[in-house]
Amino acid sequence: MCSGLFVSFEGVDGCGKSTQWQAVADALRLHYPDKEILQTRNPGGTKIGQAIRSLLLTPQADGDAPMAPMSELLLYMADRAQHVEEVLTPALDRGAIVLCDRFVDSSIAYQGAARGIEPELILQLNRFACGDLHPHLTLLFDGDVKKLAKRVKARGNQDRLELEGTAFQEKVRQGFLALAQREPTRVHRLDALASIEALTAQAVELIMQKSETAQAADDIWNTYFAEETA
Amino acid sequence: MCSGLFVSFEGVDGCGKSTQWQAVADALRLHYPDKEILQTRNPGGTKIGQAIRSLLLTPQADGDAPMAPMSELLLYMADRAQHVEEVLTPALDRGAIVLCDRFVDSSIAYQGAARGIEPELILQLNRFACGDLHPHLTLLFDGDVKKLAKRVKARGNQDRLELEGTAFQEKVRQGFLALAQREPTRVHRLDALASIEALTAQAVELIMQKSETAQAADDIWNTYFAEETA
Repeated sequence: MCSGLFVSFEGVDGCGKSTQWQAVADALRLHYPDKEILQTRNPGGTKIGQAIRSLLLTPQADGDAPMAPMSELLLYMADRAQHVEEVLTPALDRGAIVLCDRFVDSSIAYQGAARGIEPELILQLNRFACGDLHPHLTLLFDGDVKKLAKRVKARGNQDRLELEGTAFQEKVRQGFLALAQREPTRVHRLDALASIEALTAQAVELIMQKSETAQAADDIWNTYFAEETA
Repeated sequence: MCSGLFVSFEGVDGCGKSTQWQAVADALRLHYPDKEILQTRNPGGTKIGQAIRSLLLTPQADGDAPMAPMSELLLYMADRAQHVEEVLTPALDRGAIVLCDRFVDSSIAYQGAARGIEPELILQLNRFACGDLHPHLTLLFDGDVKKLAKRVKARGNQDRLELEGTAFQEKVRQGFLALAQREPTRVHRLDALASIEALTAQAVELIMQKSETAQAADDIWNTYFAEETA
């Protein structure tokens, strides 16, 4: 049985999830010095995925035909299929805590809520790409998109999706919030406008809680399995 | 109503389909000087598709993790979704004869018959990528894979799939032959070991027959439509 913990970090562009992804990893390495803490991202968690990521995020040249929404979605899924097989499944089998910058919820928020592809179709494609693998815990960094957009601009060098503007980001945000409402046990909303330290503390606490529950479930399973095969 | 004709060229590596694709285009331009003859390919028929094609066909470096079969399939589908939206549908709507080097049957033969992904799943993904668009006519250049492999080697610079060897190519061949058996009206087997001239003549004849049937169907439809709206 899989004994690792799979945590995804989600939110609109500029929500601070990448900063938190790093801070949380640092904190967990102090808390669990004997555990493997794997930081990875979607897209781009493999060598093949890095090439797909560059295709997805590099702004297009003037006069280029726009990327078809279905093509965009299928590229994300191709990245994910490679990521699951090459990185995620082996790491979870080793018992690692996997911190993944974006996963399936981003597809539902960006290609679904914002681009208009049916969420059911996205989930079906995602099953092809990932099988039954799903995050145990999703941290959603949520806040007013106009305030968050200022952070992105301050950073400079916007990517293809960041360049879509605030009306697009608002649709993405609503997509994420709908997911948090639908799956409250898995998806936890955090206030992206809170201080970095407060957010890291909350995120680490949620992960530790989930990790202990997962460990307890694992222990029950292993005891049961040991009795069954005794 | 779509009044173009969509012809795909299929077969194992080294079957000569790309040579025929060029020769047939040249011949059709003489036969139909007023018609648009569009040559395109899958993968690589768009700028986005060229980047995907390079990712799919560039041999991997030593020590690289192999590409997951599902990731490979999804990359082909991403290319195809872009190709359908940007190139194929507009060209067919303009009434062009579209000659496409590979299409969905290659996915079924390579990722299905050779890599072991369920054909039904491939067709389902293909519907996501292409909607209802399907070739009107498929020319399958078929022959003994060992004899054809010699041609590929003579050409030098083998790509990632050509490097898979003859056992792989044999599975691909059987995948194509099963399709020809299942859909005899659409998929026509041609002897890849025949002379270039004989093959071009056969291919052009098949396309002209299909084009006239399609034109006749179009005429009937247009007459009907004219009467309905009169």
